[in-house]
Amino acid sequence: MTLQQQITALAKQARQASRALARLSTSEKNAALLAMADALEAGKDALLKANAQDMEAAVQGGLSAAMLDRLRLDEKRIGAMANGLREVAALADPVGRILDERTRPNGLRLQKVATPIGVVVIIFESRPNVTADAAGLCFKAGNATILRGGKEAMHSNQAIADTMMKAAKLPEGAIRLVPTTDREAIKLLLSETQYVDLCIPRGGEGLIRAVTECSRVPVIKHYKGVCHVFVDREADLGMAEDIVMNAKVQRPAVCNAMETLLVDRAVASKFLPVITQKLREKKVELRVDEETRKLIGSTEAKSATEEDYFTEYNDYILNIRTVADAKEAIAHINHYGSAHSDAIVTSNEGRAKQFLQEVDSATVYWNASTRFTDGGEFGMGAEIGISTDKIGARGPMGLEELTSYKWIGYGTGQIRT
Amino acid sequence: MTLQQQITALAKQARQASRALARLSTSEKNAALLAMADALEAGKDALLKANAQDMEAAVQGGLSAAMLDRLRLDEKRIGAMANGLREVAALADPVGRILDERTRPNGLRLQKVATPIGVVVIIFESRPNVTADAAGLCFKAGNATILRGGKEAMHSNQAIADTMMKAAKLPEGAIRLVPTTDREAIKLLLSETQYVDLCIPRGGEGLIRAVTECSRVPVIKHYKGVCHVFVDREADLGMAEDIVMNAKVQRPAVCNAMETLLVDRAVASKFLPVITQKLREKKVELRVDEETRKLIGSTEAKSATEEDYFTEYNDYILNIRTVADAKEAIAHINHYGSAHSDAIVTSNEGRAKQFLQEVDSATVYWNASTRFTDGGEFGMGAEIGISTDKIGARGPMGLEELTSYKWIGYGTGQIRT
Repeated sequence: MTLQQQITALAKQARQASRALARLSTSEKNAALLAMADALEAGKDALLKANAQDMEAAVQGGLSAAMLDRLRLDEKRIGAMANGLREVAALADPVGRILDERTRPNGLRLQKVATPIGVVVIIFESRPNVTADAAGLCFKAGNATILRGGKEAMHSNQAIADTMMKAAKLPEGAIRLVPTTDREAIKLLLSETQYVDLCIPRGGEGLIRAVTECSRVPVIKHYKGVCHVFVDREADLGMAEDIVMNAKVQRPAVCNAMETLLVDRAVASKFLPVITQKLREKKVELRVDEETRKLIGSTEAKSATEEDYFTEYNDYILNIRTVADAKEAIAHINHYGSAHSDAIVTSNEGRAKQFLQEVDSATVYWNASTRFTDGGEFGMGAEIGISTDKIGARGPMGLEELTSYKWIGYGTGQIRT
Repeated sequence: MTLQQQITALAKQARQASRALARLSTSEKNAALLAMADALEAGKDALLKANAQDMEAAVQGGLSAAMLDRLRLDEKRIGAMANGLREVAALADPVGRILDERTRPNGLRLQKVATPIGVVVIIFESRPNVTADAAGLCFKAGNATILRGGKEAMHSNQAIADTMMKAAKLPEGAIRLVPTTDREAIKLLLSETQYVDLCIPRGGEGLIRAVTECSRVPVIKHYKGVCHVFVDREADLGMAEDIVMNAKVQRPAVCNAMETLLVDRAVASKFLPVITQKLREKKVELRVDEETRKLIGSTEAKSATEEDYFTEYNDYILNIRTVADAKEAIAHINHYGSAHSDAIVTSNEGRAKQFLQEVDSATVYWNASTRFTDGGEFGMGAEIGISTDKIGARGPMGLEELTSYKWIGYGTGQIRT
């Protein structure tokens, strides 16, 4: 078989499996998820063995310590995957929800009902736990999943997928890894518009751009998080301090952490010396505009460049910019931000509403930290990521966001006149 | 300016306009729509003059009579465009709807609120009325619209867009035609991922495929309608006759008309002779499988080919196939259909439910004609088309389907711990 034939066969089989998965009841799906969880724990020796193969090749290949850590499986991480599947089993089934209902004057009753999407391709990087997490969520939403992980995790991913499939006795193709590390395979897979309904790339900017470039199927992008906090002239400055510190240092490596602090000129001279002192205590490197520099009397802080304002640091680095007012803050966010999560701190309702309406981001906050953008924090349970797109899903993407819908018309012989 | 620079400038301006449109109140938008409608009627002489230019070039270019008819504007058609805009003004504003609301244990109140999408590109073929219809719907949903019509309608489209923009005093870029017929312009425009949020191609299969091939922005496809009616063994055959005739001949040229009739073997010998007689009376050309041919005793009916089953005729042509049961009908529809609209006629509830669940189409009917798949018939008001995609919108795409959403978090100083 050529690679093209292999990929078409794989996609077609996933489509067939998706038809079978769409017919499963909630209790059948939950039983399968629990069986998968138990099997991962019971099969930990096989998983650790497969992972050891990957780790050995990775060490020989000279992967960084950080990469090796991401790749590593151990008993605790296997337990976390299993518990993740159990949590998904406990969540409400998103399929079959009635989203709308109406009866037309001719008596035709219409229902808009949540359905599985069908076949979802997940492309991800080196963490093998994504195999279980993503496939579990997609499965609960009634979808077949085709996974393509990093080549360094190939054996681990395969062992996890095999264990899940075998335990749950799923139809062939329900959860499948792309069986090659050939890059051309992704392009071919994402051209199978007849069999593939959606692609969700999870990873760095480069991966997401490459997938978007080559895909003929819809892609929901989980793009970078260049998040902002704007401290308005009418902010409670104590609250602003708490929110700024939380958004920056509570966990800087994640996408909903703040990368740029915007401060209203009217309170800048009062707020900036205090907050920069606190940030420095936490070893946060500051990159500032000239006005901010004057106010904090610092010569050591770097000057923020245009590029800095576009950058997701995921680290103990923060841009600070003094702005004229809320309007300038909104313009900055809409220009430099990544439409992920942005917050205003103010006690002025009018300006808060303006900010919430005009900042064109997936999630906007009034007097709360950007760090809340998360499926768990939103009460959705697990999530597959945070969409920065506007079509299909926006913000945290949980089970409901892994469904589509159909319209059902219940008639008694209605015809159109 | 190079074409690339021209297109980038146009897309950027549309983005800026979209920010202004998102701030308009419902009454401002409605007043603008009514002003546009009045202006189209008041400016009919200019529109007819622009259209005459297009018509003259089209006649010289040897366009078919059907194409010329699609291109033609007259007083009645201008009135219809104006009234279409008035109807859109009367529809509920889809922006600002609260789609979900929850308060978290920490007191953070979350709202999921409908927002405009932003910048929508509409690519269409020769009918100039699409300029007004599509731009009016997009505008009401708070979106900026970039339109690219057929080159043969360039003057007409431009005159319509100019009239609407001037009447409503909209920000520059709110409704814009791509100012060139260069095909490369579409590719460039659909690469402006920073400024363009969505593309909706309206037209034939070739157009939609070409757009999907080259687009880097999300595309919602309004693909062909290969629709089916399945007459089950427990159908009320009188009802089945009415539905089949309605689905085929009431208006064969539209996407929700039936292209293939599937008949359960158990009632085929009773139903087929009757229905084929009726269809012949309406001059419907039949393309049949061998079993059907025997039952209708016809030597004149053509044999249906594989390709026929995939074809949207939009004409007085119908495929007929006898199937073993509902399961075979479902498999046929999922294989050959275009996931648009499909119906079962039966009095058996179990089989109806199976059909409604397992047929993977945007709209499925039980004892009703496929012809109901339409924004107006669904009570949505005007529609921009019927999506055969599963991401973003599925089925009739009205005002609500032209919106996205954002999450708003209302806090009192919450931080994440």
